[in-house]
Amino acid sequence: MSSTTTPMICKDLDGDDRWLSIHKRFVQECKEKDPDVMFIGDCILESLQFTDFWNSHFVPMHCLNFSIRNDRIQNVLWRLQNGELENVRPKAVVLHVGTNNICDSAEEVADGLLELVATIRSKLPEVYIIIPTLLPRGNQPNALRDKNAAVNRLLKERCIGKDKVQTVCVDGGLIQSDGSISHHDMFDYLNLTNVGCKKVFEPVWDLLHQILTENEKERDLTPSE
Amino acid sequence: MSSTTTPMICKDLDGDDRWLSIHKRFVQECKEKDPDVMFIGDCILESLQFTDFWNSHFVPMHCLNFSIRNDRIQNVLWRLQNGELENVRPKAVVLHVGTNNICDSAEEVADGLLELVATIRSKLPEVYIIIPTLLPRGNQPNALRDKNAAVNRLLKERCIGKDKVQTVCVDGGLIQSDGSISHHDMFDYLNLTNVGCKKVFEPVWDLLHQILTENEKERDLTPSE
Repeated sequence: MSSTTTPMICKDLDGDDRWLSIHKRFVQECKEKDPDVMFIGDCILESLQFTDFWNSHFVPMHCLNFSIRNDRIQNVLWRLQNGELENVRPKAVVLHVGTNNICDSAEEVADGLLELVATIRSKLPEVYIIIPTLLPRGNQPNALRDKNAAVNRLLKERCIGKDKVQTVCVDGGLIQSDGSISHHDMFDYLNLTNVGCKKVFEPVWDLLHQILTENEKERDLTPSE
Repeated sequence: MSSTTTPMICKDLDGDDRWLSIHKRFVQECKEKDPDVMFIGDCILESLQFTDFWNSHFVPMHCLNFSIRNDRIQNVLWRLQNGELENVRPKAVVLHVGTNNICDSAEEVADGLLELVATIRSKLPEVYIIIPTLLPRGNQPNALRDKNAAVNRLLKERCIGKDKVQTVCVDGGLIQSDGSISHHDMFDYLNLTNVGCKKVFEPVWDLLHQILTENEKERDLTPSE
Protein backbone atom coordinates (compact mmCIF):
# COMPACT_ATOMS: atom_id res chain seq x y z
CA MET A 1 0.00 0.00 0.00
CA SER A 2 1.51 3.33 -1.05
CA SER A 3 1.89 6.24 1.38
CA THR A 4 -0.50 8.31 -0.74
CA THR A 5 -3.34 5.84 -0.24
CA THR A 6 -2.85 5.45 3.51
CA PRO A 7 -4.67 8.07 5.62
CA MET A 8 -2.22 9.98 7.77
CA ILE A 9 -2.80 12.51 10.50
CA CYS A 10 -0.54 15.54 10.15
CA LYS A 11 2.00 15.38 12.96
CA ASP A 12 2.17 18.49 15.14
CA LEU A 13 5.82 19.23 14.45
CA ASP A 14 5.49 22.89 15.49
CA GLY A 15 3.94 22.31 18.91
CA ASP A 16 0.80 24.45 18.68
CA ASP A 17 -1.52 21.76 17.36
CA ARG A 18 -2.84 24.01 14.61
CA TRP A 19 -3.61 21.30 12.05
CA LEU A 20 -5.88 19.36 14.38
CA SER A 21 -7.55 22.57 15.56
CA ILE A 22 -8.38 23.43 11.95
CA HIS A 23 -9.69 19.91 11.27
CA LYS A 24 -11.91 20.03 14.37
CA ARG A 25 -13.33 23.35 13.25
CA PHE A 26 -14.14 21.90 9.81
CA VAL A 27 -15.96 18.96 11.45
CA GLN A 28 -17.91 21.42 13.57
CA GLU A 29 -18.82 23.50 10.51
CA CYS A 30 -20.30 20.38 8.91
CA LYS A 31 -22.79 20.27 11.77
CA GLU A 32 -23.69 23.94 11.53
CA LYS A 33 -23.72 24.70 7.82
CA ASP A 34 -25.45 23.43 4.74
CA PRO A 35 -23.03 23.88 1.82
CA ASP A 36 -23.95 23.23 -1.81
CA VAL A 37 -20.30 23.04 -2.79
CA MET A 38 -17.28 21.92 -0.80
CA PHE A 39 -13.70 22.79 -1.71
CA ILE A 40 -11.26 20.30 -0.19
CA GLY A 41 -7.52 20.38 -0.47
CA ASP A 42 -4.24 22.18 0.00
CA CYS A 43 -2.60 25.63 -0.24
CA ILE A 44 -3.94 26.33 -3.73
CA LEU A 45 -7.54 26.22 -2.52
CA GLU A 46 -6.64 27.84 0.80
CA SER A 47 -5.31 30.97 -0.90
CA LEU A 48 -8.27 30.99 -3.31
CA GLN A 49 -10.56 32.08 -0.48
CA PHE A 50 -8.65 35.34 0.05
CA THR A 51 -9.28 36.58 -3.48
CA ASP A 52 -11.93 38.88 -4.85
CA PHE A 53 -12.77 36.12 -7.31
CA TRP A 54 -13.74 33.81 -4.44
CA ASN A 55 -15.94 36.49 -2.91
CA SER A 56 -17.68 37.45 -6.12
CA HIS A 57 -18.07 34.00 -7.68
CA PHE A 58 -17.93 31.20 -5.13
CA VAL A 59 -19.36 32.70 -1.95
CA PRO A 60 -22.83 33.13 -3.56
CA MET A 61 -22.79 29.37 -4.36
CA HIS A 62 -22.85 28.46 -0.64
CA CYS A 63 -19.36 26.99 -0.51
CA LEU A 64 -17.33 25.63 2.36
CA ASN A 65 -13.58 25.53 1.92
CA PHE A 66 -11.77 22.81 3.87
CA SER A 67 -8.22 23.42 2.77
CA ILE A 68 -5.01 23.36 4.76
CA ARG A 69 -1.79 24.90 3.53
CA ASN A 70 0.78 22.11 3.44
CA ASP A 71 -1.54 19.14 3.17
CA ARG A 72 -0.58 16.13 1.15
CA ILE A 73 -3.05 13.57 -0.21
CA GLN A 74 -2.75 11.24 2.79
CA ASN A 75 -3.60 14.11 5.18
CA VAL A 76 -6.74 15.01 3.25
CA LEU A 77 -7.62 11.32 3.18
CA TRP A 78 -7.37 11.22 6.97
CA ARG A 79 -9.53 14.32 7.31
CA LEU A 80 -12.24 12.93 5.04
CA GLN A 81 -12.30 9.65 6.92
CA ASN A 82 -12.58 11.48 10.22
CA GLY A 83 -15.63 13.65 9.97
CA GLU A 84 -15.21 16.30 7.28
CA LEU A 85 -17.88 14.73 5.07
CA GLU A 86 -20.38 13.88 7.83
CA ASN A 87 -23.65 15.80 8.32
CA VAL A 88 -23.40 17.53 4.93
CA ARG A 89 -25.08 16.91 1.57
CA PRO A 90 -23.22 19.07 -0.95
CA LYS A 91 -24.10 18.81 -4.65
CA ALA A 92 -20.46 19.11 -5.68
CA VAL A 93 -16.99 18.66 -4.23
CA VAL A 94 -13.96 20.42 -5.73
CA LEU A 95 -10.76 18.54 -4.93
CA HIS A 96 -7.23 19.92 -5.32
CA VAL A 97 -4.33 18.22 -3.60
CA GLY A 98 -1.13 16.49 -4.65
CA THR A 99 1.28 19.28 -5.51
CA ASN A 100 2.75 18.99 -1.99
CA ASN A 101 3.41 15.25 -2.43
CA ILE A 102 6.93 16.19 -3.47
CA CYS A 103 8.52 12.81 -2.78
CA ASP A 104 5.83 10.65 -4.39
CA SER A 105 5.84 9.62 -8.06
CA ALA A 106 3.18 10.74 -10.54
CA GLU A 107 1.71 7.23 -10.38
CA GLU A 108 1.50 7.37 -6.57
CA VAL A 109 -0.08 10.82 -6.63
CA ALA A 110 -2.69 9.62 -9.15
CA ASP A 111 -3.35 6.53 -7.00
CA GLY A 112 -3.87 8.76 -3.98
CA LEU A 113 -6.27 11.04 -5.83
CA LEU A 114 -8.34 8.04 -6.94
CA GLU A 115 -8.41 6.80 -3.34
CA LEU A 116 -9.76 10.23 -2.36
CA VAL A 117 -12.38 10.00 -5.10
CA ALA A 118 -13.44 6.56 -3.80
CA THR A 119 -13.65 7.91 -0.24
CA ILE A 120 -15.79 10.85 -1.30
CA ARG A 121 -18.01 8.54 -3.38
CA SER A 122 -18.54 6.15 -0.44
CA LYS A 123 -19.56 9.02 1.85
CA LEU A 124 -21.60 10.97 -0.73
CA PRO A 125 -22.93 8.58 -3.40
CA GLU A 126 -24.65 11.29 -5.47
CA VAL A 127 -22.13 14.12 -5.34
CA TYR A 128 -20.34 15.53 -8.39
CA ILE A 129 -16.58 15.36 -7.93
CA ILE A 130 -14.64 18.04 -9.78
CA ILE A 131 -10.87 17.78 -9.98
CA PRO A 132 -9.03 20.81 -11.34
CA THR A 133 -5.72 19.61 -12.77
CA LEU A 134 -2.57 20.13 -10.69
CA LEU A 135 -1.09 23.51 -11.53
CA PRO A 136 2.38 24.09 -12.91
CA ARG A 137 4.81 25.59 -10.37
CA GLY A 138 8.16 27.34 -10.18
CA ASN A 139 9.22 30.47 -12.04
CA GLN A 140 11.12 28.38 -14.60
CA PRO A 141 10.49 24.91 -16.07
CA ASN A 142 11.42 22.19 -13.57
CA ALA A 143 10.87 18.54 -12.71
CA LEU A 144 7.84 19.22 -10.49
CA ARG A 145 6.01 20.86 -13.37
CA ASP A 146 6.68 17.76 -15.47
CA LYS A 147 5.49 15.50 -12.67
CA ASN A 148 2.28 17.45 -12.13
CA ALA A 149 1.62 17.27 -15.88
CA ALA A 150 2.16 13.49 -15.74
CA VAL A 151 -0.27 13.23 -12.80
CA ASN A 152 -2.83 15.16 -14.85
CA ARG A 153 -2.50 12.80 -17.83
CA LEU A 154 -2.81 9.69 -15.64
CA LEU A 155 -5.75 11.07 -13.74
CA LYS A 156 -7.63 12.08 -16.86
CA GLU A 157 -7.24 8.58 -18.32
CA ARG A 158 -8.29 6.88 -15.14
CA CYS A 159 -11.34 9.08 -14.55
CA ILE A 160 -12.84 8.37 -17.98
CA GLY A 161 -16.13 6.53 -17.57
CA LYS A 162 -16.43 7.31 -13.85
CA ASP A 163 -19.91 8.65 -13.20
CA LYS A 164 -20.06 12.21 -11.92
CA VAL A 165 -16.28 12.58 -11.74
CA GLN A 166 -14.80 15.28 -13.92
CA THR A 167 -11.26 16.57 -14.32
CA VAL A 168 -11.03 20.19 -15.44
CA CYS A 169 -7.95 21.40 -17.26
CA VAL A 170 -7.08 24.67 -15.56
CA ASP A 171 -3.47 25.44 -16.41
CA GLY A 172 -4.22 27.44 -19.55
CA GLY A 173 -2.56 30.81 -19.63
CA LEU A 174 -0.18 30.42 -16.69
CA ILE A 175 2.95 29.43 -18.57
CA GLN A 176 4.22 32.29 -20.71
CA SER A 177 5.78 31.92 -24.15
CA ASP A 178 9.30 31.89 -22.66
CA GLY A 179 8.36 29.08 -20.27
CA SER A 180 8.22 31.27 -17.17
CA ILE A 181 5.32 31.81 -14.76
CA SER A 182 4.70 35.42 -13.71
CA HIS A 183 4.33 36.56 -10.12
CA HIS A 184 1.28 38.46 -11.36
CA ASP A 185 -0.43 35.05 -11.65
CA MET A 186 1.36 33.17 -8.86
CA PHE A 187 2.85 35.44 -6.22
CA ASP A 188 5.24 32.75 -4.97
CA TYR A 189 5.26 30.64 -8.16
CA LEU A 190 2.96 28.12 -6.44
CA ASN A 191 -0.14 29.93 -5.16
CA LEU A 192 -2.44 32.12 -7.19
CA THR A 193 -3.01 35.85 -7.08
CA ASN A 194 -6.48 37.21 -7.75
CA VAL A 195 -5.58 37.55 -11.45
CA GLY A 196 -4.31 33.96 -11.54
CA CYS A 197 -7.38 32.69 -9.70
CA LYS A 198 -9.66 34.17 -12.30
CA LYS A 199 -7.74 32.41 -15.09
CA VAL A 200 -7.61 29.08 -13.28
CA PHE A 201 -10.93 28.83 -11.51
CA GLU A 202 -13.26 30.35 -14.10
CA PRO A 203 -13.71 26.96 -15.86
CA VAL A 204 -14.37 25.38 -12.45
CA TRP A 205 -16.98 28.02 -11.71
CA ASP A 206 -18.60 27.46 -15.12
CA LEU A 207 -18.91 23.73 -14.46
CA LEU A 208 -20.24 24.25 -10.95
CA HIS A 209 -22.75 26.77 -12.24
CA GLN A 210 -23.94 24.23 -14.81
CA ILE A 211 -24.20 21.43 -12.22
CA LEU A 212 -26.09 23.55 -9.71
CA THR A 213 -28.46 24.88 -12.38
CA GLU A 214 -29.20 21.38 -13.74
CA ASN A 215 -29.73 20.20 -10.22
CA GLU A 216 -32.35 22.89 -9.71
CA LYS A 217 -34.07 22.01 -12.97
CA GLU A 218 -34.20 18.32 -12.01
CA ARG A 219 -35.69 19.25 -8.68
CA ASP A 220 -38.30 21.42 -10.38
CA LEU A 221 -39.20 18.59 -12.78
CA THR A 222 -39.59 15.97 -10.05
CA PRO A 223 -43.35 15.65 -9.35
CA SER A 224 -44.11 16.62 -5.78
CA GLU A 225 -45.51 13.79 -3.69
CA MET B 1 27.56 32.06 16.68
CA SER B 2 23.93 31.03 16.86
CA SER B 3 22.05 29.76 13.81
CA THR B 4 19.72 32.75 14.01
CA THR B 5 22.57 35.21 13.53
CA THR B 6 24.18 33.35 10.61
CA PRO B 7 22.74 34.22 7.19
CA MET B 8 21.37 31.13 5.49
CA ILE B 9 20.06 30.62 1.99
CA CYS B 10 16.84 28.63 1.95
CA LYS B 11 17.62 25.24 0.49
CA ASP B 12 15.48 24.25 -2.48
CA LEU B 13 14.06 21.11 -0.90
CA ASP B 14 11.07 20.99 -3.28
CA GLY B 15 13.01 21.16 -6.52
CA ASP B 16 11.39 24.12 -8.25
CA ASP B 17 13.72 26.80 -6.92
CA ARG B 18 10.86 29.06 -5.87
CA TRP B 19 12.57 30.74 -2.92
CA LEU B 20 15.50 31.98 -4.98
CA SER B 21 13.16 33.07 -7.80
CA ILE B 22 11.21 35.18 -5.31
CA HIS B 23 14.41 36.68 -3.87
CA LYS B 24 15.69 37.57 -7.35
CA ARG B 25 12.40 39.28 -8.14
CA PHE B 26 12.66 41.34 -4.93
CA VAL B 27 16.21 42.42 -5.86
CA GLN B 28 14.92 43.42 -9.29
CA GLU B 29 12.03 45.40 -7.76
CA CYS B 30 14.57 47.39 -5.73
CA LYS B 31 16.01 48.61 -9.03
CA GLU B 32 12.65 49.53 -10.53
CA LYS B 33 10.65 50.95 -7.64
CA ASP B 34 10.97 53.71 -5.12
CA PRO B 35 9.23 52.57 -1.92
CA ASP B 36 8.68 54.79 1.11
CA VAL B 37 8.01 51.76 3.30
CA MET B 38 9.35 48.22 3.07
CA PHE B 39 7.75 45.24 4.79
CA ILE B 40 10.25 42.44 5.27
CA GLY B 41 9.57 39.07 6.80
CA ASP B 42 7.61 35.85 6.86
CA CYS B 43 4.13 34.39 6.34
CA ILE B 44 2.42 36.95 8.61
CA LEU B 45 3.45 39.82 6.35
CA GLU B 46 2.98 37.73 3.21
CA SER B 47 -0.69 37.11 3.95
CA LEU B 48 -1.15 40.76 4.97
CA GLN B 49 -0.87 41.81 1.33
CA PHE B 50 -3.96 39.82 0.32
CA THR B 51 -6.25 41.72 2.68
CA ASP B 52 -8.51 44.68 2.04
CA PHE B 53 -6.70 46.40 4.90
CA TRP B 54 -3.43 46.24 2.96
CA ASN B 55 -5.07 47.67 -0.14
CA SER B 56 -6.86 50.48 1.66
CA HIS B 57 -4.15 51.47 4.16
CA PHE B 58 -0.69 50.40 3.07
CA VAL B 59 -0.78 50.51 -0.73
CA PRO B 60 -1.27 54.33 -0.72
CA MET B 61 1.92 54.62 1.39
CA HIS B 62 4.09 53.28 -1.48
CA CYS B 63 5.04 50.02 0.19
CA LEU B 64 7.02 47.07 -1.06
CA ASN B 65 6.45 43.75 0.68
CA PHE B 66 9.41 41.37 0.65
CA SER B 67 7.98 38.49 2.64
CA ILE B 68 8.30 34.76 2.06
CA ARG B 69 6.00 32.24 3.67
CA ASN B 70 8.20 29.90 5.71
CA ASP B 71 11.18 32.17 6.22
CA ARG B 72 13.15 32.07 9.44
CA ILE B 73 15.37 34.87 10.69
CA GLN B 74 18.53 33.49 9.09
CA ASN B 75 16.83 33.36 5.68
CA VAL B 76 15.75 36.99 5.88
CA LEU B 77 19.27 37.87 7.03
CA TRP B 78 20.64 36.20 3.90
CA ARG B 79 18.18 38.05 1.68
CA LEU B 80 19.04 41.44 3.20
CA GLN B 81 22.75 40.80 2.80
CA ASN B 82 22.25 39.81 -0.82
CA GLY B 83 20.55 42.72 -2.50
CA GLU B 84 17.11 43.32 -1.03
CA LEU B 85 18.14 46.64 0.53
CA GLU B 86 20.21 47.91 -2.40
CA ASN B 87 19.06 50.75 -4.70
CA VAL B 88 16.26 51.79 -2.34
CA ARG B 89 15.87 54.62 0.16
CA PRO B 90 12.75 53.82 2.20
CA LYS B 91 11.81 56.02 5.15
CA ALA B 92 10.67 53.03 7.20
CA VAL B 93 11.12 49.27 7.34
CA VAL B 94 8.56 47.01 9.02
CA LEU B 95 10.15 43.77 10.17
CA HIS B 96 8.27 40.63 11.22
CA VAL B 97 10.04 37.30 11.39
CA GLY B 98 10.85 34.75 14.08
CA THR B 99 7.64 32.81 14.62
CA ASN B 100 8.94 30.14 12.21
CA ASN B 101 12.14 29.73 14.23
CA ILE B 102 10.43 26.84 16.01
CA CYS B 103 13.60 25.14 17.23
CA ASP B 104 15.41 28.24 18.49
CA SER B 105 15.09 29.63 22.01
CA ALA B 106 13.54 33.01 22.80
CA GLU B 107 17.05 34.34 23.46
CA GLU B 108 18.29 33.09 20.08
CA VAL B 109 15.27 34.56 18.26
CA ALA B 110 15.85 37.93 19.97
CA ASP B 111 19.57 37.76 19.06
CA GLY B 112 18.62 37.09 15.45
CA LEU B 113 16.19 40.00 15.34
CA LEU B 114 18.85 42.35 16.69
CA GLU B 115 21.26 41.07 14.04
CA LEU B 116 18.62 41.94 11.44
CA VAL B 117 18.23 45.40 12.96
CA ALA B 118 22.02 45.90 12.76
CA THR B 119 22.04 44.76 9.13
CA ILE B 120 19.23 47.12 8.18
CA ARG B 121 20.95 49.98 10.04
CA SER B 122 24.24 49.37 8.26
CA LYS B 123 22.53 49.44 4.85
CA LEU B 124 20.10 52.28 5.61
CA PRO B 125 21.56 54.55 8.33
CA GLU B 126 18.56 56.89 8.48
CA VAL B 127 15.64 54.49 8.20
CA TYR B 128 13.02 53.97 10.92
CA ILE B 129 12.84 50.31 11.90
CA ILE B 130 9.44 49.19 13.15
CA ILE B 131 9.11 45.77 14.74
CA PRO B 132 5.58 44.56 15.42
CA THR B 133 5.73 42.02 18.26
CA LEU B 134 5.56 38.33 17.38
CA LEU B 135 1.94 37.26 17.37
CA PRO B 136 0.43 34.53 19.54
CA ARG B 137 -0.39 31.33 17.65
CA GLY B 138 -2.41 28.14 18.00
CA ASN B 139 -6.10 27.83 18.79
CA GLN B 140 -5.32 27.05 22.45
CA PRO B 141 -2.52 28.22 24.78
CA ASN B 142 0.74 26.44 23.98
CA ALA B 143 4.50 26.65 24.43
CA LEU B 144 5.06 28.62 21.21
CA ARG B 145 2.77 31.38 22.42
CA ASP B 146 4.82 31.56 25.61
CA LYS B 147 8.05 31.62 23.65
CA ASN B 148 6.88 34.39 21.33
CA ALA B 149 5.81 36.42 24.39
CA ALA B 150 9.29 35.89 25.87
CA VAL B 151 10.89 37.04 22.59
CA ASN B 152 8.75 40.18 22.73
CA ARG B 153 9.84 40.99 26.30
CA LEU B 154 13.53 40.49 25.47
CA LEU B 155 13.30 42.49 22.29
CA LYS B 156 11.52 45.40 23.93
CA GLU B 157 14.21 45.60 26.64
CA ARG B 158 17.04 45.39 24.16
CA CYS B 159 15.61 47.99 21.77
CA ILE B 160 15.28 50.66 24.46
CA GLY B 161 17.57 53.57 23.63
CA LYS B 162 18.20 52.44 20.06
CA ASP B 163 17.66 55.42 17.78
CA LYS B 164 14.82 55.04 15.28
CA VAL B 165 14.03 51.48 16.31
CA GLN B 166 10.57 50.92 17.69
CA THR B 167 8.76 47.77 18.78
CA VAL B 168 4.98 47.95 18.47
CA CYS B 169 2.81 45.77 20.66
CA VAL B 170 0.24 44.32 18.28
CA ASP B 171 -1.25 41.29 19.97
CA GLY B 172 -4.11 43.15 21.64
CA GLY B 173 -7.48 41.60 21.04
CA LEU B 174 -6.42 38.30 19.50
CA ILE B 175 -6.57 36.11 22.60
CA GLN B 176 -10.14 35.72 23.79
CA SER B 177 -11.21 35.56 27.45
CA ASP B 178 -11.14 31.73 27.40
CA GLY B 179 -7.56 31.75 26.07
CA SER B 180 -8.50 30.69 22.55
CA ILE B 181 -7.77 32.47 19.26
CA SER B 182 -10.66 32.63 16.78
CA HIS B 183 -10.41 31.60 13.13
CA HIS B 184 -12.20 34.87 12.42
CA ASP B 185 -8.90 36.61 13.36
CA MET B 186 -6.42 33.91 12.30
CA PHE B 187 -7.80 31.51 9.70
CA ASP B 188 -5.19 28.85 10.48
CA TYR B 189 -4.36 30.05 14.00
CA LEU B 190 -1.11 31.55 12.67
CA ASN B 191 -1.92 33.93 9.82
CA LEU B 192 -4.35 36.81 9.94
CA THR B 193 -7.69 37.27 8.23
CA ASN B 194 -8.71 40.73 7.08
CA VAL B 195 -10.44 41.28 10.44
CA GLY B 196 -7.34 40.16 12.32
CA CYS B 197 -5.10 42.32 10.13
CA LYS B 198 -7.07 45.40 11.00
CA LYS B 199 -6.68 44.68 14.75
CA VAL B 200 -2.98 43.92 14.48
CA PHE B 201 -1.68 46.34 11.88
CA GLU B 202 -3.68 49.45 12.71
CA PRO B 203 -1.08 50.55 15.35
CA VAL B 204 1.66 49.90 12.79
CA TRP B 205 -0.18 52.01 10.24
CA ASP B 206 -0.63 54.81 12.82
CA LEU B 207 3.08 54.87 13.55
CA LEU B 208 4.01 54.78 9.86
CA HIS B 209 1.58 57.57 9.14
CA GLN B 210 3.18 59.66 11.89
CA ILE B 211 6.71 58.95 10.63
CA LEU B 212 5.88 59.74 7.01
CA THR B 213 4.04 62.93 7.98
CA GLU B 214 6.90 64.14 10.20
CA ASN B 215 9.30 63.32 7.44
CA GLU B 216 7.33 65.52 5.06
CA LYS B 217 7.25 68.35 7.59
CA GLU B 218 11.02 68.12 8.10
CA ARG B 219 11.51 68.23 4.39
CA ASP B 220 9.28 71.29 4.10
CA LEU B 221 11.19 73.03 6.94
CA THR B 222 14.60 72.34 5.45
CA PRO B 223 15.70 75.55 3.65
CA SER B 224 16.19 74.88 -0.02
CA GLU B 225 19.72 75.40 -1.21
